[in-house]
Amino acid sequence: MKIYLAGPDVFLPDALEIGRRKVAICARHGLTGLYPLDNDVDLAASDASRVIFRGNEMMMDDADAIIANLTPFRGPGADAGTVYELGYMAGRSKLCLGYCNDPTLYADRVRRFTSVAERDGRLVDAEGLTVEDFSLPDNLMMIHALELHGHPLVLPRERPKDVWHDLAAFEICVKLAAERLGAES
Amino acid sequence: MKIYLAGPDVFLPDALEIGRRKVAICARHGLTGLYPLDNDVDLAASDASRVIFRGNEMMMDDADAIIANLTPFRGPGADAGTVYELGYMAGRSKLCLGYCNDPTLYADRVRRFTSVAERDGRLVDAEGLTVEDFSLPDNLMMIHALELHGHPLVLPRERPKDVWHDLAAFEICVKLAAERLGAES
Repeated sequence: MKIYLAGPDVFLPDALEIGRRKVAICARHGLTGLYPLDNDVDLAASDASRVIFRGNEMMMDDADAIIANLTPFRGPGADAGTVYELGYMAGRSKLCLGYCNDPTLYADRVRRFTSVAERDGRLVDAEGLTVEDFSLPDNLMMIHALELHGHPLVLPRERPKDVWHDLAAFEICVKLAAERLGAES
Repeated sequence: MKIYLAGPDVFLPDALEIGRRKVAICARHGLTGLYPLDNDVDLAASDASRVIFRGNEMMMDDADAIIANLTPFRGPGADAGTVYELGYMAGRSKLCLGYCNDPTLYADRVRRFTSVAERDGRLVDAEGLTVEDFSLPDNLMMIHALELHGHPLVLPRERPKDVWHDLAAFEICVKLAAERLGAES
């Protein structure tokens, strides 16, 4: 069984090494991890971004499930590319799993980036835009997509010291995927 | 023909009014706009966020196409809920269109929120994470999803004065959808 390994991990300085660790964890649980950077792309080519897209989409179409790393990336919420991929896999009726190494609620995360006030019974940011306040860790579309198309978001009890390299929550997702996909463990 | 109207418009103080304007523009082009806030939800209920999710998913399943508002929301990139929905509709093989009222390139948008430096031939942010630098306005997954599953992202030549209420780029998407779906205009 094949699992697409989505996440902003690809933007880390040691992106390849993280991918190798994730694939190895999958293998220990009888699963094949598909990591986006395994696609061979010439980054200097003029159509590099399109080649990356096509490679990722082919990997997703080939996979039985996704494990999305929804740890906040450059802002209060998850990485957009990862969120797109989670949506795509839900749309394809694949098994959807995800984890997030920051258990903070969304409204509290937003407070780290901008002022949040209460106005007419709702929370608003500095621009006057509503801040989702459902006691969820991120936008409700991802949170309930996981719950209804796979397994609820996996969160650590406490934020690990190194949110980008701690793979405990990831491994829980792999175990859940192995159980659900009936793989040998 | 039905179009799902995705976007952070639902977080505006005048979210209902924007929805009415968008639905009216769709109607002028012979299309039925489905706006998330048209789902009747009791926001005080304990399962409100799940009810919203299910309502949005039913609307998406019912729609022939999506027009996603990818204007940067509370950070350098598009709203996560909207991005999820674009992915879902691409996964469902529906027609995907989108617009963004900020034509700035992604790397330049990131510079507004954090320092960006060049290291080992790539751009990195203050945390050392790679900043995508493909001369695209947002994460490559959304940009190429639109190009390959519908129509390239619609951008204004210049950022309109009021990015949240200017619907010129939205109307271009509606026209494109009407042409592609063969609706009466």
